[in-house]
Amino acid sequence: MNCPPGTAVRRGAAAIVYVAVLGSCAATATAPGQARNVILMIGDGMDEQQITLARDYVHGAEGGFAMEQMPRRVSVKVQTVMEAPPHGTDFIADSANTATSIATGELTSQGRLATSAGDDRELPTIVEQAWAGGLRTGIVTTARVTDATPAAFVTHVSSRECEGPRSTAPAAGVSGCPADLQSAGGRGSIAEQLAASKLDLLFGGGAQYFAEPAPGAGTVAGIAQRNGFRVLHDARQMTELQPGARALGLFARGNLAREWSGENARVAETIALDAQGKPRFPQPFGCVPNIADQPPVTLEAMTRQALRLLETDNPRGFLLVVEGASIDKAAHDRDPCGEIGELQAFDRAVKTAREFVAANPDTLLIVTADHAQAGQVVGAPALYREYGEWSGRAEYNPGFYAVLRTPRGELLGVSYATNAAGTQEELHTGGNVPAYIEGPGSARVPILIAQRELYTLMHAHLGLPMADSAATP
Amino acid sequence: MNCPPGTAVRRGAAAIVYVAVLGSCAATATAPGQARNVILMIGDGMDEQQITLARDYVHGAEGGFAMEQMPRRVSVKVQTVMEAPPHGTDFIADSANTATSIATGELTSQGRLATSAGDDRELPTIVEQAWAGGLRTGIVTTARVTDATPAAFVTHVSSRECEGPRSTAPAAGVSGCPADLQSAGGRGSIAEQLAASKLDLLFGGGAQYFAEPAPGAGTVAGIAQRNGFRVLHDARQMTELQPGARALGLFARGNLAREWSGENARVAETIALDAQGKPRFPQPFGCVPNIADQPPVTLEAMTRQALRLLETDNPRGFLLVVEGASIDKAAHDRDPCGEIGELQAFDRAVKTAREFVAANPDTLLIVTADHAQAGQVVGAPALYREYGEWSGRAEYNPGFYAVLRTPRGELLGVSYATNAAGTQEELHTGGNVPAYIEGPGSARVPILIAQRELYTLMHAHLGLPMADSAATP
Repeated sequence: MNCPPGTAVRRGAAAIVYVAVLGSCAATATAPGQARNVILMIGDGMDEQQITLARDYVHGAEGGFAMEQMPRRVSVKVQTVMEAPPHGTDFIADSANTATSIATGELTSQGRLATSAGDDRELPTIVEQAWAGGLRTGIVTTARVTDATPAAFVTHVSSRECEGPRSTAPAAGVSGCPADLQSAGGRGSIAEQLAASKLDLLFGGGAQYFAEPAPGAGTVAGIAQRNGFRVLHDARQMTELQPGARALGLFARGNLAREWSGENARVAETIALDAQGKPRFPQPFGCVPNIADQPPVTLEAMTRQALRLLETDNPRGFLLVVEGASIDKAAHDRDPCGEIGELQAFDRAVKTAREFVAANPDTLLIVTADHAQAGQVVGAPALYREYGEWSGRAEYNPGFYAVLRTPRGELLGVSYATNAAGTQEELHTGGNVPAYIEGPGSARVPILIAQRELYTLMHAHLGLPMADSAATP
Repeated sequence: MNCPPGTAVRRGAAAIVYVAVLGSCAATATAPGQARNVILMIGDGMDEQQITLARDYVHGAEGGFAMEQMPRRVSVKVQTVMEAPPHGTDFIADSANTATSIATGELTSQGRLATSAGDDRELPTIVEQAWAGGLRTGIVTTARVTDATPAAFVTHVSSRECEGPRSTAPAAGVSGCPADLQSAGGRGSIAEQLAASKLDLLFGGGAQYFAEPAPGAGTVAGIAQRNGFRVLHDARQMTELQPGARALGLFARGNLAREWSGENARVAETIALDAQGKPRFPQPFGCVPNIADQPPVTLEAMTRQALRLLETDNPRGFLLVVEGASIDKAAHDRDPCGEIGELQAFDRAVKTAREFVAANPDTLLIVTADHAQAGQVVGAPALYREYGEWSGRAEYNPGFYAVLRTPRGELLGVSYATNAAGTQEELHTGGNVPAYIEGPGSARVPILIAQRELYTLMHAHLGLPMADSAATP
């Protein structure tokens, strides 16, 4: 790279790393500001189609989300490699390898958490490096805290499936993660590694894995308590936490419930044809609060409390990771209302984070997604019918299709059509995802970056040590 | 809107318009710079999934297009209204109403060109206002010059279908545009309006419509000649043009041919199931130059020549509109190689425009798309098989699916699955599209804008008059 001479001189060591990896002289005309704090927010599966879908429903065609008012918006290339040598390109990602990219700056294969493709090396994470640098750290999610996105920031496991001691041990129908077993000299399951970690705050679901017996150590929750965590189970306990406390908040057995569902629990459906071959389009439906099963605590409330606890009496700064997990999970269920409600809930947490940044301008806020999803905004039945009449052939969506009636009475077609099967695995798509950025140096981030460069950006801004950390006990 | 007092004082009239419509005080801290020239480039159907698809194939996972190195990248909300009162929201657009948004700053219904939904009022266009302001103007496209995107900048017609005198007159099976007929006091077909326009340069395809007889006026091409256009039919004539000449370049009967096709003309296919219900995935194929039918002239060559002609000896500045039309047209044919080749061709024209901007920094360059398309980057067959084995159900794409073999030997899955029918009408999707911006004031454009605000941005930067123009003779 041939940058103009002298530009590097004005910068500290951390900033030089940023410059070299982002590979753009334009981005280096001035030194990036160092941030005291970093807030990283990940909307799982939240690409621009999903954002448009949610915006159209919640705010209407003229509206916008809080994240869409941030000062900088860049595109992020989602990259994955194959597990087998020579580790060629996989154009589709999952939440494990993408969280690994963001957390470690390294590419890996689908399903891996902060371990390398093929040879299973541990990859140091930004959270471990924050511990080494004396920062406070917190992770907040609407998923199980053992789920891929939160776990990749702290744990090193060959498979995201190994959430608790039971699933880590090979058994009938379970391949497990034998090399990760503590009995094999490994670090144990994801829950065990989280319980033994130096995190200050960890809020989400997944209590079931912490209730499992850990080999020779009671339950996994017991490990956490002995490691200094207060283990919480309800929202009141969370709101009563005082600065300085270390806390593991497990607010649901599995994932936190979604805020919204479709009327009568309706989701996208396949379109049947009548005897004349004409499509029977599904009737429109609206979105309603998921009353039967409300989340015990909102992502916004967890984020607000985490920010308060991490900031108060903190001389060095903090790194907070926030995940809106069920945007993706609802999309896997082809549940557009679930998806829209979770995206709205995520954006409310973003609004809270933006208020914190306004009051603490030495904070870098990055709002991004891990990978793209299948959902698309498509025509309502009238449009399909019109074209069918025009072309003389029945026009209809061959996948799963919903027609939402928005609060303003509009009809909003939604398609999930990457997989014909009733199961939902093959729904991730390979498109770019956005990163909305606010805070020191945000204006200089190039408009196209690789996902692992988010790691580099955070690392440089926090002035963290480069040393391998492997900082879990 | 409550902006801090005093901000408006520092700005001229044009800039105030920009501020008011974009509606963001943050964007108004300093006055936007005025640009001498504006280059507006529209990749038809070019949303972020289509860009990722093309990038993955052409440049690989680590690569990027020229447009992705521009300094500012914002998202654009694509908005459409219904034809019938009360003109509610249509979440799906076509190229006619979106080009109208960009050209006029007004929303209209699908199929309309610079006319209002319902009451068919003429909407003044930025090109007409550029004429009134003394700027030179040019339009370059790979489509018929009478196609919706180029036409909306100059003509006023109730339906994009009325490209020549024949299709404008109602006849058996043709609804036509009776109110637009010159015999009814209208402006005539799109071709007639273009022929009578004050454009300096118009390059593309669509010779067939200019060969049609115009009522009482010989052919449409004859109208153009009498109006001062040199009518060209081959690339050599285009390269020989000298500054000051007005030229109508018609380089193909219809659309210009696409630069690439699939090996053996292959496109995406439906997946058949064998007797056991297992999917028969299509064999991979690569992309090849479209040797049988090469385009007579590239978009890059047309753009380069247009820039040279518009700039030379021009005291006032120019507005150039460039369209990469067949990104969308290939997507409608579920032809991923056609789509990729056209996106690459468009990006080459962007590179030429960026070189012009580098040499002429008083030029505002906007690279955008009109609407999103159906194409998605999805898993290769191995991934579908893996999940099928895991879930016990056959997993496969229910729509049209292709597996591309990239020049590096990777497998790249592509899905077009918004419509089951053999015809391709219902393929547009409602997602945001990008706008890449470079030049005076680009850093101050908010990260989320409505499509019609692109008009406001261009209008303010060129310092154009607001008056109704209706400037075609």
